[in-house]
Amino acid sequence: MKKNKVKELWRQGKPAVMGWCSSGNPYIAEVMAHAGYDALTIDWQHGVGVSQSSVVSCIQAIGNTDVVPLVRVPKNEPDYISYVLDAGAYGVIVPMVNSNEEAAMAGLACRYAPQGNRSIGGSRAALATGMDDYVMHANDEIICLVMIETTKALENVEEIAKAPGIDGLYIGPSDLSLDMGVSLSGWADDERHLAASQRVIEAARSAGVVPCHHGAGPAVSAKLMKMGFMLCQIASDVRTISAGTASGFQAFKEAMKENGVSFR
Amino acid sequence: MKKNKVKELWRQGKPAVMGWCSSGNPYIAEVMAHAGYDALTIDWQHGVGVSQSSVVSCIQAIGNTDVVPLVRVPKNEPDYISYVLDAGAYGVIVPMVNSNEEAAMAGLACRYAPQGNRSIGGSRAALATGMDDYVMHANDEIICLVMIETTKALENVEEIAKAPGIDGLYIGPSDLSLDMGVSLSGWADDERHLAASQRVIEAARSAGVVPCHHGAGPAVSAKLMKMGFMLCQIASDVRTISAGTASGFQAFKEAMKENGVSFR
Amino acid sequence: MKKNKVKELWRQGKPAVMGWCSSGNPYIAEVMAHAGYDALTIDWQHGVGVSQSSVVSCIQAIGNTDVVPLVRVPKNEPDYISYVLDAGAYGVIVPMVNSNEEAAMAGLACRYAPQGNRSIGGSRAALATGMDDYVMHANDEIICLVMIETTKALENVEEIAKAPGIDGLYIGPSDLSLDMGVSLSGWADDERHLAASQRVIEAARSAGVVPCHHGAGPAVSAKLMKMGFMLCQIASDVRTISAGTASGFQAFKEAMKENGVSFR
Amino acid sequence: MKKNKVKELWRQGKPAVMGWCSSGNPYIAEVMAHAGYDALTIDWQHGVGVSQSSVVSCIQAIGNTDVVPLVRVPKNEPDYISYVLDAGAYGVIVPMVNSNEEAAMAGLACRYAPQGNRSIGGSRAALATGMDDYVMHANDEIICLVMIETTKALENVEEIAKAPGIDGLYIGPSDLSLDMGVSLSGWADDERHLAASQRVIEAARSAGVVPCHHGAGPAVSAKLMKMGFMLCQIASDVRTISAGTASGFQAFKEAMKENGVSFR
Amino acid sequence: MKKNKVKELWRQGKPAVMGWCSSGNPYIAEVMAHAGYDALTIDWQHGVGVSQSSVVSCIQAIGNTDVVPLVRVPKNEPDYISYVLDAGAYGVIVPMVNSNEEAAMAGLACRYAPQGNRSIGGSRAALATGMDDYVMHANDEIICLVMIETTKALENVEEIAKAPGIDGLYIGPSDLSLDMGVSLSGWADDERHLAASQRVIEAARSAGVVPCHHGAGPAVSAKLMKMGFMLCQIASDVRTISAGTASGFQAFKEAMKENGVSFR
Amino acid sequence: MKKNKVKELWRQGKPAVMGWCSSGNPYIAEVMAHAGYDALTIDWQHGVGVSQSSVVSCIQAIGNTDVVPLVRVPKNEPDYISYVLDAGAYGVIVPMVNSNEEAAMAGLACRYAPQGNRSIGGSRAALATGMDDYVMHANDEIICLVMIETTKALENVEEIAKAPGIDGLYIGPSDLSLDMGVSLSGWADDERHLAASQRVIEAARSAGVVPCHHGAGPAVSAKLMKMGFMLCQIASDVRTISAGTASGFQAFKEAMKENGVSFR
Repeated sequence: MKKNKVKELWRQGKPAVMGWCSSGNPYIAEVMAHAGYDALTIDWQHGVGVSQSSVVSCIQAIGNTDVVPLVRVPKNEPDYISYVLDAGAYGVIVPMVNSNEEAAMAGLACRYAPQGNRSIGGSRAALATGMDDYVMHANDEIICLVMIETTKALENVEEIAKAPGIDGLYIGPSDLSLDMGVSLSGWADDERHLAASQRVIEAARSAGVVPCHHGAGPAVSAKLMKMGFMLCQIASDVRTISAGTASGFQAFKEAMKENGVSFR
Repeated sequence: MKKNKVKELWRQGKPAVMGWCSSGNPYIAEVMAHAGYDALTIDWQHGVGVSQSSVVSCIQAIGNTDVVPLVRVPKNEPDYISYVLDAGAYGVIVPMVNSNEEAAMAGLACRYAPQGNRSIGGSRAALATGMDDYVMHANDEIICLVMIETTKALENVEEIAKAPGIDGLYIGPSDLSLDMGVSLSGWADDERHLAASQRVIEAARSAGVVPCHHGAGPAVSAKLMKMGFMLCQIASDVRTISAGTASGFQAFKEAMKENGVSFR
Repeated sequence: MKKNKVKELWRQGKPAVMGWCSSGNPYIAEVMAHAGYDALTIDWQHGVGVSQSSVVSCIQAIGNTDVVPLVRVPKNEPDYISYVLDAGAYGVIVPMVNSNEEAAMAGLACRYAPQGNRSIGGSRAALATGMDDYVMHANDEIICLVMIETTKALENVEEIAKAPGIDGLYIGPSDLSLDMGVSLSGWADDERHLAASQRVIEAARSAGVVPCHHGAGPAVSAKLMKMGFMLCQIASDVRTISAGTASGFQAFKEAMKENGVSFR
Repeated sequence: MKKNKVKELWRQGKPAVMGWCSSGNPYIAEVMAHAGYDALTIDWQHGVGVSQSSVVSCIQAIGNTDVVPLVRVPKNEPDYISYVLDAGAYGVIVPMVNSNEEAAMAGLACRYAPQGNRSIGGSRAALATGMDDYVMHANDEIICLVMIETTKALENVEEIAKAPGIDGLYIGPSDLSLDMGVSLSGWADDERHLAASQRVIEAARSAGVVPCHHGAGPAVSAKLMKMGFMLCQIASDVRTISAGTASGFQAFKEAMKENGVSFR
Repeated sequence: MKKNKVKELWRQGKPAVMGWCSSGNPYIAEVMAHAGYDALTIDWQHGVGVSQSSVVSCIQAIGNTDVVPLVRVPKNEPDYISYVLDAGAYGVIVPMVNSNEEAAMAGLACRYAPQGNRSIGGSRAALATGMDDYVMHANDEIICLVMIETTKALENVEEIAKAPGIDGLYIGPSDLSLDMGVSLSGWADDERHLAASQRVIEAARSAGVVPCHHGAGPAVSAKLMKMGFMLCQIASDVRTISAGTASGFQAFKEAMKENGVSFR
Repeated sequence: MKKNKVKELWRQGKPAVMGWCSSGNPYIAEVMAHAGYDALTIDWQHGVGVSQSSVVSCIQAIGNTDVVPLVRVPKNEPDYISYVLDAGAYGVIVPMVNSNEEAAMAGLACRYAPQGNRSIGGSRAALATGMDDYVMHANDEIICLVMIETTKALENVEEIAKAPGIDGLYIGPSDLSLDMGVSLSGWADDERHLAASQRVIEAARSAGVVPCHHGAGPAVSAKLMKMGFMLCQIASDVRTISAGTASGFQAFKEAMKENGVSFR
């Protein structure tokens, strides 16, 4: 089984960066994978264009590069986790995990017995080296990240971090902000959010797992990494399109004005 | 039948701008349509993610905005033109048109009798106002642009411009450059390309049709419009993703350096 | 955020009618939307042709008209509700809700904090006006209807009606009939069903929510509206095809007979 | 190889009726097939929802009944004909055939050597009985109908009828009317159209092939059959939906009025 | 409603064999169905290529033969069961059932009231004979098999076998082996597995339900049937491709060697 | 641009073997690619499950291995060739090429100017190294094979072999046999076919291109390679399934008999 590059970076104490795919389009996913991220996450929770069949298509597309394919599953549900791992994902991001028990449910779903309860079946990830090899190594290579995105999760974060089978905590700043009453656009500089982030980092370190944070552009992501987070999303397909087309159109209008050509 | 906004702009002597969709993904197309372009072209010729079924899905997605849906067909072939117009496209861009006869084939395929030979059938575009209304107005609202992208086409451009049923000439700079021996990355400033552009503009004006040019970023597009082109593509989905993720990653690395955090 | 036309009708005390899409085919959905209904529901529960990816395709197709897109989710499950609302649905119909707690689970899944626990993410519905605007208004515009379709639900209907986050009760007559021992084809005139309907209307009115009823053709739907129901389904794609082709074939046979032409 | 029921009816001197599928949706196609038609045609020319992959899906769906699957191909092009026959269609309707040569191109594309030039390949239709059996019988069972839908075709109809490999002539009344200057909604009673129909019937009979006519509702179709046409389309999915939902909505409004309930 | 051929075999005391489809590809499913199995199971749990929409496509494809379509659902979840039965499956295989209560949940989800709680809706399976007929017979014809694949399930197997609504027990040897510490490749001859198999057979017989076992090639499946199992899977699409291409390539290399032609 | 492994083998005087994909299913394609072939051809001509969108999906799937993706296009049509090369195919097999002119049309469609007339556009194959690099190398790496499958092609084979832009001749034995009156199942030992094969080999060698032959199982393919063919298909997905399931079922029946268990 091919090694998980993100885990290897972590073993060396190095942070990893990832892209985010909400369109569920394999071609777009492949284009993004060529940006050179360590990982690319297919967002099956909020990615409007993502469905069960596009998950495997996107993983196949990403497999044309050496980027690690991850999937955010729609909810903390073992059969979703089972499916995406069978499809060849090297890890999952599990939303709305609020307790040690919930975290354990996610963590155990990522591991074959005796460590967990992942069901054996024809895995795409096993195609390259065979089922025996895959079953022997998958428990070590698969990443399981649980999302900390409610005040309840924050209160339980030290216990969540100790749940069996998980590799890290992943802060979801939008839902957490909404729940803490923090501004959706201002969390990056909000004291409450910074305190929460610090608490998550410490809980992760104490438990020997990895603190991660959903990003918000290059500058914020870099700042989060300086704080100690070891995985940040630094771009999404849909936002890159939105922002890129808006700024391109603006640049065009300005160039028209500079050229002295009237344009609405 | 709803009016074609691009044609209305042209009637007022105003240029129009458009986006370009190569992914064939309806969600991405809809996101792009919200950028505020006048038109959005689905590229069924070179758009790797585009297929027959995604053409209609993208047109339906674009229909959630007031952007005009256009399609570049795979070749100058009446049945492709028929399909995309039935699907609700308000115009076509037809590649590799090298003579008056070829241009007429495209132009007539866009018009119902007696002007042309478009076959009548259950058009999606007719859903809103009924088939009778659609057949009565479609010949006036549909745009047919033929691509000038070979030296042969350039030689025949004055005759091409007079072909029945066409609304404009659309320069494809990459293929034209390749054919003229002009650098693929330097055509925007190349004398031969500028001369060719000027000839196309004049041929179009003489024939009472509209000169159009495939774009290459905001600055070049603005310059082309200053020259007199009335329609330019100013952004594509795939290039926006490529460029946006690359520059975002670069910005992240610089932010890491500024923060004094080591990163490969 | 665009207003929800169905909610506006209700605010004016007017009933609304809707179509029903079981095929999951965007073209069929768009054709139905042109019939002029106030809303069109995509049935992800029993609609054999509906899947996760067709939900968003159908919503995009319906968006070419001003009909309100609703979705019946497969079960009372927050992640299904989250997905269809992110995809741009303006409301959900939630099957098999039997208690106040279950109704609250549905209702809260439709609302962002502080009213509920809907997770924030890249919503298609936010494309037009931006995420901030969408989050500010979605709680007011989204409709949450819970289905009353068991005797147990009927017993608890007054409590169900008071659940937070719900807008109305929606009777599912087939399952309810099956559970009450009422004939599947005769419920519209059955005393037990009429009594149940009356009870649901009163429970809804007392709680300040809206009584709704799945329809069974124009005449029955009109009768239900006379009783006080404020939303009825009056046609489905699959039944319209079945009934329309059967009656058309019958008419053809009769015309053949009138013409004196033998036909099997 | 299973016999072609439509050909068997013709051998017995009996006419056949067919449905028409423009949505390309397999579930809708299957629902239509249960209406009891002899054949069901998937319209890959003007059917906006039809694409290459939906053709085979619809044929598989229709195969759940004993209805004969036919396909109208996008144009008179051997590779389209080859694909749909490989996919299991029992016949093709070929649009815009204007001469004996064009008709022969269609006819020969439907037959294996030595009668024609259909290329051999893995046919779905051969699954049931094997390739040898299929190749032995396909030339006899496959139906090839060429469309007469221009004045030019009408002038050449006697020669077209004699083309090798074709089984019948199929009048396309909309395009023919447009080309003859006949009203799109009035052709069924127009003298010119009736004369054209008569000429096609006679040309077909003289050449030993079958006269067919696209239908326009039960009454017109029955009248056409009385004239001597042996195959008529009597319903399409999209029109059945349009007409059925419109009349249902109207019936609902009338029922509301009868019930004395105000409704817009 | 068409009879369930597998149930009829069982009523006659005869075992049934089935194929297994992991690709979710309708064409592959149809090819497999022509192998002459009694049933073909679409594996929505571990079949990487299977998704909600491919389930119905595969069932439609299988319907071109008289093979019985079954589906393994992703988990013991009533809405998955409801969907696949609506789509026309004649039975389900339900994974990870560990107690009488869990088995009852699966069993009741397969039956309409009063035997169970399956919700009524537009079933594809009802197309042929109508909803009334389908509802009258479905409870008798649908097969519900629950999987015994943990030591916990084995401990409870006698109680599981008595759960209402189930037709049989289905051993999943891989997960069971993993849980019992038996070798994944050696279970067929392992004493512990044989003892477990015997216990399942006896529990099934005592409760009047049918013992079934996932297969592992022709020889093992035949041995299992000799033991008394009444349904075995004897081939899967993906394994047939893997094994067939490997052995074909090997045969080619040997033929090259015999021919004296060098080949890597 | 990554080197074309098949061309490299040829440069070393070594033959190459390939698999064949008719299902168009990316998962099946990926499974086949793991068999270790040098190339895998997606058959868009006779592959019933293949469509425009599945071509790119299969190429993306194959890209998870180092197998070279080829496509047989539906016909000798530049826009099909353009599409599959843009999608990332490393070569095309072009059916029904009967003259030097037809071969040149195929060959030139595979080459950018000045060698040919392939249109430039956003190529998936260029993702890895950029468009400039791709355009510089594609003409050397792309394989263009034209099919010799009629007696007419055989008569012109020496001229066909000299056409610009082609890399080899590819015998299609089924169509050729049909056209020569040779038995479909007996061509491998037929004198006429052997003579034709010899002529193709010599024509290819004289012109400096590569002789190739569609295979028919390991033994025949090895024999063809001994004759001098440099590329053979040795397995297809659909045939592997058909043959594998049939022989597996037979083995099961025999094992049942050996076990003394009665089975139909």
